Amino acid sequence: MFSCEILRIGHRPERDKRVTTHVALTARAFGARRIYISNPDSRVIKSVQEVIDKFGGDFEILPTDNPKEIVKKSGSKVIHLTMFGLPFDDKCEEIKNLGEDILLIVGAEKVPPWVFELADYNIAVGNQPHSEIAALAIAMNNLHPISYNLDFSGRLSVIPSATHRNMMDLAKD
Amino acid sequence: MFSCEILRIGHRPERDKRVTTHVALTARAFGARRIYISNPDSRVIKSVQEVIDKFGGDFEILPTDNPKEIVKKSGSKVIHLTMFGLPFDDKCEEIKNLGEDILLIVGAEKVPPWVFELADYNIAVGNQPHSEIAALAIAMNNLHPISYNLDFSGRLSVIPSATHRNMMDLAKD
Repeated sequence: MFSCEILRIGHRPERDKRVTTHVALTARAFGARRIYISNPDSRVIKSVQEVIDKFGGDFEILPTDNPKEIVKKSGSKVIHLTMFGLPFDDKCEEIKNLGEDILLIVGAEKVPPWVFELADYNIAVGNQPHSEIAALAIAMNNLHPISYNLDFSGRLSVIPSATHRNMMDLAKD
Repeated sequence: MFSCEILRIGHRPERDKRVTTHVALTARAFGARRIYISNPDSRVIKSVQEVIDKFGGDFEILPTDNPKEIVKKSGSKVIHLTMFGLPFDDKCEEIKNLGEDILLIVGAEKVPPWVFELADYNIAVGNQPHSEIAALAIAMNNLHPISYNLDFSGRLSVIPSATHRNMMDLAKD
């Protein structure tokens, strides 16, 4: 079974609060088991933890003040998502065929040079500027066979509907 | 040729500034031709316009104070991306086979009921809470055959690299 961790670097407090929250929730929904966030606002941790508590799963969100050490001590293949990298489509099969666990690095605006140097792969989901959230979703969706259709068996769950908002709450029903 | 427009609703000034910017940049990079944003901060428009000016393409970003009218007057199939909708994977082929232009609606946290009512499809990229940016990327990547590998022929372009940041600037080189 594919195991994937995410490292979010370059988070700027306040400014990146919501984007980093989206990165973490995407990581969870698409099947990562853990995200490390360098110097996060406490509100980011709190709001992601609330989603985990309500919607289930054993996804972990962990702050770090030493992202470089996370990379160096990781036994996984290190894949840095960057618009400057080689085309993801050219490398996706190669990465899958490694059969190894993956540490995906997701940067904010500027990424320090050590990230490029320590990564096993510097990979681009397109070479246009867009969003690390979009890149993460595409990468995980292609690397992970189940991806966004995972079942989390949480207290809250959505009842899919063609027409309206509908949720089941095990604490109430 | 597939033609896709995006409508971003529920944008909350200041709070959603960066997320909405990511929505717009993802729309552009994945091949949409236009995004409408309800009541955007002027900074969102400005920063997306700067990317268009530098990196090319004829993507348009337009503010609107009447998103409902945009939907009503659109001749396209209206697809609302929502975690409460039917599974995207079950509807993707059906939507592609329509061969029609598409208006994708991307909401922020709470979406008014009229969006569900006016949409031809309410579709979920997974029923977990994650990110409208991730949902947009997955939807466009599946609906659009070229998606994030589009060529924009802009002044600035990335030279893909396995090891470092490298850009070509036609104004300098």
